[in-house]
This record gives sequence, structure tokens and C-alpha cells, in this order.
Amino acid sequence: MLNFELYNPVKIVFGPGESSKTGMYAAQYGKKAMLVTYEQHDFFNQLLEKLYKSFEDAGVEVVQFYKIKPNPRLSDIRQAVEICRKENVDVVVALGGGSVMDSVKIIAAGALYKDDVWKMFVSRHDVEVAVPPTETLPTILIPTKSATSSESNCIAVATNDETHEKAYVWTPVIFAKVAIMDPELTATLPPFQTAAGAVDAISHVLEAYLNGDQNSPVQDRINEGLITAVMDLLKNILKNPDDMQARASLQWAATLTWNGYLQSGLNAPTPCHQIGHVLSALYDIDHGVTLAVVMPAFFKYTAHLNDERAARFAELGNRVFGISRDGRKDIEVAEEFINKFEGFIKEVGVPTKFSEVNIPKEDLDKIADDVVRLGCNAQGELPSIPPIKRDGLMQILKLAY
Amino acid sequence: MLNFELYNPVKIVFGPGESSKTGMYAAQYGKKAMLVTYEQHDFFNQLLEKLYKSFEDAGVEVVQFYKIKPNPRLSDIRQAVEICRKENVDVVVALGGGSVMDSVKIIAAGALYKDDVWKMFVSRHDVEVAVPPTETLPTILIPTKSATSSESNCIAVATNDETHEKAYVWTPVIFAKVAIMDPELTATLPPFQTAAGAVDAISHVLEAYLNGDQNSPVQDRINEGLITAVMDLLKNILKNPDDMQARASLQWAATLTWNGYLQSGLNAPTPCHQIGHVLSALYDIDHGVTLAVVMPAFFKYTAHLNDERAARFAELGNRVFGISRDGRKDIEVAEEFINKFEGFIKEVGVPTKFSEVNIPKEDLDKIADDVVRLGCNAQGELPSIPPIKRDGLMQILKLAY
Repeated sequence: MLNFELYNPVKIVFGPGESSKTGMYAAQYGKKAMLVTYEQHDFFNQLLEKLYKSFEDAGVEVVQFYKIKPNPRLSDIRQAVEICRKENVDVVVALGGGSVMDSVKIIAAGALYKDDVWKMFVSRHDVEVAVPPTETLPTILIPTKSATSSESNCIAVATNDETHEKAYVWTPVIFAKVAIMDPELTATLPPFQTAAGAVDAISHVLEAYLNGDQNSPVQDRINEGLITAVMDLLKNILKNPDDMQARASLQWAATLTWNGYLQSGLNAPTPCHQIGHVLSALYDIDHGVTLAVVMPAFFKYTAHLNDERAARFAELGNRVFGISRDGRKDIEVAEEFINKFEGFIKEVGVPTKFSEVNIPKEDLDKIADDVVRLGCNAQGELPSIPPIKRDGLMQILKLAY
Repeated sequence: MLNFELYNPVKIVFGPGESSKTGMYAAQYGKKAMLVTYEQHDFFNQLLEKLYKSFEDAGVEVVQFYKIKPNPRLSDIRQAVEICRKENVDVVVALGGGSVMDSVKIIAAGALYKDDVWKMFVSRHDVEVAVPPTETLPTILIPTKSATSSESNCIAVATNDETHEKAYVWTPVIFAKVAIMDPELTATLPPFQTAAGAVDAISHVLEAYLNGDQNSPVQDRINEGLITAVMDLLKNILKNPDDMQARASLQWAATLTWNGYLQSGLNAPTPCHQIGHVLSALYDIDHGVTLAVVMPAFFKYTAHLNDERAARFAELGNRVFGISRDGRKDIEVAEEFINKFEGFIKEVGVPTKFSEVNIPKEDLDKIADDVVRLGCNAQGELPSIPPIKRDGLMQILKLAY
């Protein structure tokens, strides 16, 4: 376990029906709210009406910004920042998944930022050092998907639509004031998105488990429990979409996977996410799906690198799927785990191969180039255990194809 | 899973050596700090010297209050409040276990409280409604024991030495600004205290697991993982007291057991704690020890009450100790779990019977009376699953004897 600092002041308001209190919370921060959601929001028009009513009842005026796309674009965020400034908005409210919540974090900080918002972002090709924001308008985040944990962390990711780079802002300044987590809202999602979101949540746990500090038994036992619970819950929800208790549990699990608490002391890099971000930026693929197609290949490659890696996957397989290790080589148990895990992703209806999401085979080199450019360190290595160079990356991409 | 609100703004600074930064953090809140620790502090004199140096380097003047006793007394707290006011202290710093940290939370709030601090406390026999504090001096908490999670929660417990009542203050106002968790400090403890502290940490998890909402699989899986980790770590530390990695993990686990995050949505009462508090107040027994003597008896009694309880213990036994449920009655598995758990407590050197801690057999009625008076609801029931009346309580006390 490594030394760390942890600070997470987000107030979480959790439970079915709690989103009806949105106006009341917004009123604590001012008289004018910008409400941000997706460009395509037909499927929660009813919900938007309810929120409107809640703002109205609380005497809060609403400025609409219904223009966010999945894998949010910098150009849309810039436009919202302009409106925020012009309209003197007091508080920015997100209704949506990670894309909307991440956008709102940047919009709210951008409204008080002296420069173009792109300057806040880390891992851009055009700068040495980003200039993080030092202040923000208050934000209220209302997730409609159990996936990213964006509602309770201080990270925001967006894509520069001119340069096709997916980059991030990561500073305590952009923590939300309030996260209103209402599991009923997640029932607006089609099953495929529910499944892809849960795969994203599991990927957070696995990145931490496999690439973080490897001498942290408390985090290990907790993470094994989280993965087990999320897999069980997702299967239940796909069978019984109206099981609000299961949806509540899945939503809570998802927020725990990346809110800082259960990842503390691990200092884990996120290699699968780095590859996934490149796939999202190049092909506009759902974030959870990019992880579903990267993880099995990444695991197959790394499990065979050395005995320690094989043992790690074997322990995971034993604790999560109850695969016996008695009298077997670790690599056998590891392979069984990886097959079972890939089988789970297929079972919940999410693709596990590049070929299923129309990534052309001739693009593998280009993808590797972008991962090296945007996700690797100065030595050209993708941080993970062990660090992976370009040739390893190509092997992973081939396995994923 | 139940609806909930969660807010925990404590900044955690974690890791071996981090306590050397205490002065730097204190300086963020003013020029004069009150440093509070135990009356008996010989075993960490060296540590106190280091802290002093850290304050000195940061230009912070120190007012000493080295008078806290285990199971802290209201009279000592009152005295510290007076000194705080007279000396115009800016920030109050705790070095110690739960007793010192809880005292500091009350001292810091007491310094700004318009009335006698006892008026803040809930579950006193002499009032209908407590008056919680609305403001506090900033506090920095430095735990020397892995046990109570006091450093990261907003609860404080103390004993009124006139009325022999152990009561508590529970309000977000008393959250610390900073918790400095330095595992090296926990190595100052004798093995018995390390063990008793870990039993306390496990008791938090078990109270939540057994008495909180019973339809919360995410919390269940996490809690099972936490218990498993703490038991393994404690056994390691007793064998290798200098294993700082194990101490770090145990300390992190302990804070997670009662900081609000992993207990959210459960709304768990704490029946074993209610009985334990009475034992501490009457006989000045270590908090962890009171739980060690109450839990096995409580479990034996409740496991036999109905099939649902037996099944709950059986699930716990299966997941934590790997006890097979195949072809066996739940109550058999439950009994095996309880025996194994009691065996674990004995193995780590902590008493499991009243007779071992010199509680006289003729006092059982008096103990039950105090639990009813201080820990039960208006219907005379101890909140738990299921609620326990006085006759059940007497059976538990007899089993504990």
C-alpha cells in the first residue's frame, strides 16, 4: 500500500425518487441554473419535465443546454461556457451519463476560467503542462447510468473535435457540490447501455486490482467483492429490468469503483482506459464497449508475461469465480478466469472483439501510434504491470481483433 | 438498500512518516494549537517530541492537554474546553486512539458552544432532546490505534463520570479537517491493544452486516472482504509486529469500517455496541474487549431465533471462512461460523467471556437495566434484527458470562 491523500467532499443524495429534490438543492446555490443534457434526450423527456417542475417549485430559473453528445465534444463545451457567462448562471446541473457530467464539470469551471478551456486539459499533444482551473461554479450531477463514477470524482474527460484527442481534467476543484443518485433514472436506459456501463464499472476495479500496488489486501478483498456483486447484479437487471433494488445496488457499486475511496493507496495506472480512449476518439465507440473489447486481449497478453502476473489472475479467478487452484498451474487458472470473464461480457450482450465494432484491421498500427502518443510515458511505455511497449501493444490489438 | 445522504469532507493524509507533516497542516488553521493526548503517554514520548518539533518548525505554538483517559471522562473534556477558550486556541490536535480523538471533537466544538458540553450529547437519561453543536474549531486527528474510525467519522463518545452514562455526539459539524493516518504510530501499541482494536473494527462491519438492510449485496460483498482482510492482517501483525505494510492495511481497513461510505444504505443499528457501552461505563473495560465478550453471545442468541437469521450467519460463514453449506442445515453452518469466530478472538488473545474481565455474575440484571435505559427505544427494545426485549437481553448476558 502506498502513501496517499484523499479528499472527497461531494454530498451524495441517494435513492429512488431523490431526483425530485433537485430544485431544492439548486436553490442553495443561486437563482439561475443551467441544465445540461444530451442532444438526443427523447427517452427522458418525462424526466426533464419533472426536473423542470422541481426547479420551478424552488424558484430557480433554468437555462437549457441540451446539446451534449456521447464522448463529449470540446466545441459543445465551449459553446455552453459562453452561454454560462452571458447568462450569469449560478449553478450548473447535469442530467445524463459520464459524458454530460464530465461536460458540466468543465463548463462550470470554464465559466470562471480566464482562458480557453482546452488549456485545462492534460495529455494533449500541443502542450507540456496543463493549467488546471482554480475555481468553479457549483455543480449538481444527476447520473442516468451506472458506470463512470463521474458524479463522485473530480475527473472530466472530453474529446477535442479538431484534433481527435480525448484528454482529461483532474483536480479537486471540479468536485460536484451534490450528486443526486436516483436509481429510477437508470431504468430509462436500454439493456445494452446498462450492460456496457456495468462493464465500465468492472473495468475500474480490474485496472486498480491488476495495475495498482500489489501489496494491498484490504483493497484486494473489497475489489473482489465489488466485481462479484456487479456481475451478479447486472445479470439480475437484464432479467428483471424493473428490479429497483438491484438497480440501486448497481448504481452504488459503480460510484464506489472510481470515487477515490476504494482505490486509495494503489496509485493504479489505467492502461485499458488509455487504449479505450483512443478507440472512442477515433471511432466514436461507447466507452464501456471500448473496455469490453480491450480487456480480454489485454489480460491474455499480460497473464502470459510472467509467473507473478499469472498468479495474480489465478487469485482473482479463485476469489471471484471460485475456480479451484488445487494442483493446477497458475497460468491454467488464469486462462480459465479470462475465458470466464470474456464469457460473462458476451453473456450480457457486449462485444469483445474489434471486428464486432467495425474497427478496420488495417488501423491497428494507427491505433498503436495514438496510444503511444496520448497514453504512454516519455519512455514510450504504457504504464501498467509490467509497462508495455509498442510491440506489446500491437500484440494486444491483434488479440483484440 | 435504503435511501441515504452521505457527506464526508475529512482530508485523509495516509502513510508511514506522514505524521511529521502535522505542524504544516496545523499552520493552515492558525498560530496556536492545543495538543491533546492520554494522561498515560510514556510509551509515545518520542512521538510527542517529534510532533512538537513539527509544530515548532511550522511556527505553531502548542498548548498541552495530556489528561485524557481511556473511555474519556466528561470532566476532563470540560477542563480542556475552558483552557481552549482562555488560551484562544485556533486548532485542536488529537494524538491517540478513539478516546483522545472523540474528546478532541467535543473539545473543539465545546470551545464555541454557548452551554455546558453535556447538552450536546444524545442518549442521556436527563433530557428529551440534545442540542447539537453548530460550529467547531478546526481539528486534526492523528490515530495511534487501528480501531474506531473516529478520525474519519463525525461521531464522538464520552462518559459522564457523575452519572456513569456513556453517550454520544453525532453531527457533520464535528468532522475533522484533516486525519493524519501514520501506520508507524500504531506500532507503539502493545499486541493486546492492537488485537482489541481490530476486534472493534470487525464489530463495526458485523453490526452493519447483521443488523442493517438485508438486501444490499454490494455492501455485503465488500463487508465480507473487509472482515476476511482484517482477520488475516491481525494474525500477521501479531506474528510480525514490524510489518509496516500489514499495519498500514489494517489501519486503512479500520477507518473504512465506520467512516460512512461502506455503511451507506444499511441504516444499521449497533446493538452489540449499545451493550458494550454499558459495560465500559460500569467497569471501565476497553471498548474492543466489551465487543469481544458481547458478540459471540449475541450471535449465538440471534442465530437461533429464526431461519432467516440462521441463513444470514450461514452465508457469512460460507463467504468469510469458506464453510461449506452443501447438504447442511443453515443453523449448523451458523454455529460453526460462530465457534470459528469466537476461536479467532481467543487466538488473537482477547477475552470472550464476562468471567474473564471480572464482571460479577450478580450484576447481569443491573447491566440489562442500563442497556434498556440507555440503548433501547421507547418500546424497551434494543434495535437489531429482530429487536430484542429485556428477556432476550438477559439470555445474551448469561451466554456471555
